Amino acid sequence: MLHFENDFQSKNDEQTEKMMQDAYEKILLEKKEGVSGYFTLGRDSLPILDDALVYAQSNAFIQQSDTIVVIGIGGSSLGTKAIDSIFRHYRKGSKKMLFLENPDEIDLSEKLATIKKEKTLFVVVSKSGSTIEPLSIFKEVIQYFAIDYTEDDRQQIITITDKNSPLHKFSDYYGIKSFPIPSNVGGRFSVLSAVGVVPLSIAGYDIKSILEGASAMSERFFAKKENHLLQKAAFLTRHKDKTPINVLFSYANCLEDFTKWYVQLWGESLGKIDKNGNHTGLTPVGHIGSTDQHSFLQLIMQGPRDKTVTFIKVTNFKKDLKIPDISLKFIEAADYVNGYTFNELINGECEATKESIINEGISVDAITLDSFHEKNIGALIMYYELLTSLCGIMLNVNTYDQPGVETGKRILKNRFTKNER
Amino acid sequence: MLHFENDFQSKNDEQTEKMMQDAYEKILLEKKEGVSGYFTLGRDSLPILDDALVYAQSNAFIQQSDTIVVIGIGGSSLGTKAIDSIFRHYRKGSKKMLFLENPDEIDLSEKLATIKKEKTLFVVVSKSGSTIEPLSIFKEVIQYFAIDYTEDDRQQIITITDKNSPLHKFSDYYGIKSFPIPSNVGGRFSVLSAVGVVPLSIAGYDIKSILEGASAMSERFFAKKENHLLQKAAFLTRHKDKTPINVLFSYANCLEDFTKWYVQLWGESLGKIDKNGNHTGLTPVGHIGSTDQHSFLQLIMQGPRDKTVTFIKVTNFKKDLKIPDISLKFIEAADYVNGYTFNELINGECEATKESIINEGISVDAITLDSFHEKNIGALIMYYELLTSLCGIMLNVNTYDQPGVETGKRILKNRFTKNER
Repeated sequence: MLHFENDFQSKNDEQTEKMMQDAYEKILLEKKEGVSGYFTLGRDSLPILDDALVYAQSNAFIQQSDTIVVIGIGGSSLGTKAIDSIFRHYRKGSKKMLFLENPDEIDLSEKLATIKKEKTLFVVVSKSGSTIEPLSIFKEVIQYFAIDYTEDDRQQIITITDKNSPLHKFSDYYGIKSFPIPSNVGGRFSVLSAVGVVPLSIAGYDIKSILEGASAMSERFFAKKENHLLQKAAFLTRHKDKTPINVLFSYANCLEDFTKWYVQLWGESLGKIDKNGNHTGLTPVGHIGSTDQHSFLQLIMQGPRDKTVTFIKVTNFKKDLKIPDISLKFIEAADYVNGYTFNELINGECEATKESIINEGISVDAITLDSFHEKNIGALIMYYELLTSLCGIMLNVNTYDQPGVETGKRILKNRFTKNER
Repeated sequence: MLHFENDFQSKNDEQTEKMMQDAYEKILLEKKEGVSGYFTLGRDSLPILDDALVYAQSNAFIQQSDTIVVIGIGGSSLGTKAIDSIFRHYRKGSKKMLFLENPDEIDLSEKLATIKKEKTLFVVVSKSGSTIEPLSIFKEVIQYFAIDYTEDDRQQIITITDKNSPLHKFSDYYGIKSFPIPSNVGGRFSVLSAVGVVPLSIAGYDIKSILEGASAMSERFFAKKENHLLQKAAFLTRHKDKTPINVLFSYANCLEDFTKWYVQLWGESLGKIDKNGNHTGLTPVGHIGSTDQHSFLQLIMQGPRDKTVTFIKVTNFKKDLKIPDISLKFIEAADYVNGYTFNELINGECEATKESIINEGISVDAITLDSFHEKNIGALIMYYELLTSLCGIMLNVNTYDQPGVETGKRILKNRFTKNER
């Protein structure tokens, strides 16, 4: 169960109601016309899930492997990593996941040194099939582990990429198993496609429940049962000039990679030149409570009034670790939390911080998960994807492209090919 | 060696020159009057360093320990963690460091399960000596490892706190070794005080070189040999309404905790009500290149023009790991980086991204370290502390306090003591 609470500092007026109605019709059209395919991935990915599990069961190498290395960057790794970072704390006896993302030679060398070739499945993920970072890292993996394309070696590689991409053609040529990404699902919206489903299900996670949670959220939204989403999008976009920054404060360490996924989804989807030629967008900032209260809260409370704040908290961590009823001599003032669980302390901090921010007249909203259940995480992912689409519609931008990153890629290529480094 | 480069989209005028001159005089006064004590920590902490090393050598327990657990949050852990995160990749055979920061019971339980009591030194850090998170975690450590205050157990605890704080009195009472934090050095400016010096030097890091690097930067600045600092502070604060966000893009995974340290330093120091009663500040955002180019670059390029961008890159990672000269069938388009090092690729990405952002008319600056030498990191820390002080002076705020976080603490206490949770 997810609970949503909007504490915005302005009420809906007629204009807002009209924005909400328009956006609902447009997102319905996006779904109907397949402008993006993510809306129905909760259902559409079920055959991919079956395919992945059948393939894994029939593959002797995978059966005896204990590690999955995902080679990918940005949308090809962030969502998968976010889910792994949450559920690896709850799973026993399945495969470990490792992510090779940045072409940072220290990080790469250290991780390679921990990998045992005979126990590792390599999953290469690139939507375009031509991303320079994962392909360069894949080459290093090929050389480091002396991978030739014999049948044995082919068994330990999977690629996930667009149909007919260079990486797909390469896979076909060598008889390497490849899973397609739907052409209308962009990298940052792809976690519930083969991109996340294949490696996470082979790793042993309950992906079916995640997909179910996502489906349920999507269906409830389109049945107009999650209208708080429309309200939040309308509030954020109407006030984009006054409060252009949205801070996501998640109160659990294991949600750190989820906040990074949110930063990409939000930043890359909404930071655009709109249909009238204006630079627009909302700037996402991800933080972890209570740690980052000691870092960012002062700025929210007394700095420029350019932020809205979203809180995520989890009612039940399922550990029930209590703060011992110990009184330290001279430090008795800290005894007021004795006997409560750490879970109660961290959630108490979330509530206290929220209250202090609301008292300042800052707009906040809160998402409460009753537990780290797979269905809740699936629903949370779909919630954020829908919210992003709605904000994109209201900002009058193309939510699903990223034209601004092409210049840098061109300059990079020139630097190397023309030796302009 | 550090190299600094400012690519700002406006030139200094007379008013700016005056701002710079004024700020220089005021920061000189802050140093002279001891408004903050961090300016000279590079030198002032040398006796603490000696004390820590002598203590460690005389302590049989520490001599045979292999792990240091730092219990602290915010300014009590971030800087120490930032330094550990960089240098643990270069050090062999010394002690491992672990940080207990957030009262997250999953994270806490998992870390406790990996700790061997007989091999672990616990360092409890709290400036006020009454911070609720580390004290609650310390109680859990006491219970979990059945620590009583016998001589054996006392040997494996060190506290770092203000003189006469509750934690200091507790330490004195039980004969636990305690190191003081200078009263005029706040948490987020304290990494070069006992807070960082004691655990990091006992862990085996070359803290002397870090202190030397910091000292040299401070001395060069006050000798007017690092005037780019004044220029940067003047540019950022003059344009605070147009570009209130500073994005720090560090091109190395091991700098991620450094970017978190920067976020705290910047956010908590500058996000204030200024002397005229206005909310002011600059919002810090930390990112890692090239990974986060796939997340945040689109927003910088095409989103609202409210950001400046700072790049940090390191010329020589000292690994020289080359991208293999392998051509993958159908993916030959990715061969243009073959034979170059990953170091050259990541730095090429930094340069290409910087160029593409400058082409958009966005103000950037760049800091280049020739290597991850301790002196460079010490200088970088001092550079950011000085920059923060200069911005604070120019924004007319008190850089060194944090009044905005008190309300939340009061509400938290009420929730628990009055059972208002």
